Amino acid sequence: MGQGVEWGAHCCLLIAWLGEEGEAIPTAKLAEAFDLPPAYLNKCLQALSRAGILASTAGVKGGFRLGRPLEKITLLDVVVAIEGSEDAFRCSEIRQNGMGADRSAGEFLRPCGIATAMRRAELTWRRELAAQTLADMMLNVPRDVAMRAKRWYAAVGN
Amino acid sequence: MGQGVEWGAHCCLLIAWLGEEGEAIPTAKLAEAFDLPPAYLNKCLQALSRAGILASTAGVKGGFRLGRPLEKITLLDVVVAIEGSEDAFRCSEIRQNGMGADRSAGEFLRPCGIATAMRRAELTWRRELAAQTLADMMLNVPRDVAMRAKRWYAAVGN
Repeated sequence: MGQGVEWGAHCCLLIAWLGEEGEAIPTAKLAEAFDLPPAYLNKCLQALSRAGILASTAGVKGGFRLGRPLEKITLLDVVVAIEGSEDAFRCSEIRQNGMGADRSAGEFLRPCGIATAMRRAELTWRRELAAQTLADMMLNVPRDVAMRAKRWYAAVGN
Repeated sequence: MGQGVEWGAHCCLLIAWLGEEGEAIPTAKLAEAFDLPPAYLNKCLQALSRAGILASTAGVKGGFRLGRPLEKITLLDVVVAIEGSEDAFRCSEIRQNGMGADRSAGEFLRPCGIATAMRRAELTWRRELAAQTLADMMLNVPRDVAMRAKRWYAAVGN
């Protein structure tokens, strides 16, 4: 997993603080806030936007707003938006290769135990992430952090 | 996650069938059995060997044996041996960057909620994989498959 999930999730929280009135926050400011490379960050934010997590606005006053409330954005939503929805483990059915396997015999109709177990583990992981919203994450952030972010944004201009 | 986990897990089962008497199975035969590239497969098997899951024997009669019984090899063991033990999500603490963050103020002593939630999901995934042994996987394989593998191995020579 790349750094995009961390970047994206933190940007959503920061956008929630800085854009309380629904105003769009420019990518350049979000990148500056976390010392991140703007072009690559923008790709992550566009991915979140395509998933409806953020909404992008073009133009001089352009940037990103939340696409929906933090209560409706789960960590799984962020992960899937950034990393795609494929399972970490991809079964390529090598059990059907070689050794004179008879694919017509029906013995491969039942999924392989390895793929089944990997799938089950993936689902527990997804379930755990789907149970955590960005609003839950917000509860963990010390109040000072949000206050300092707002002061910083007011100072650097927007 | 690469294909190595699928390859490695299936090779362990095949080695258990073909090497019932403890004999080493050559990489070339394992590669042939699943139509896999021998050199890359060998890297995976060496990784399993370093983790004690397999044991390698050099020489003309060389190859791989099980390093311990299938009951003592979990899917997590295989994943960690092949993919390493790092979490899928790596927190780089971008929350401590920029915005005039005061790293000495102690507000970052508590782990970030995002990293905590990602870590918790990782642990549920690992717990699920640690609860599944390759012996469990073996129970799912139709008896015909093991029989055919043995017949194939006897025919291709070893």
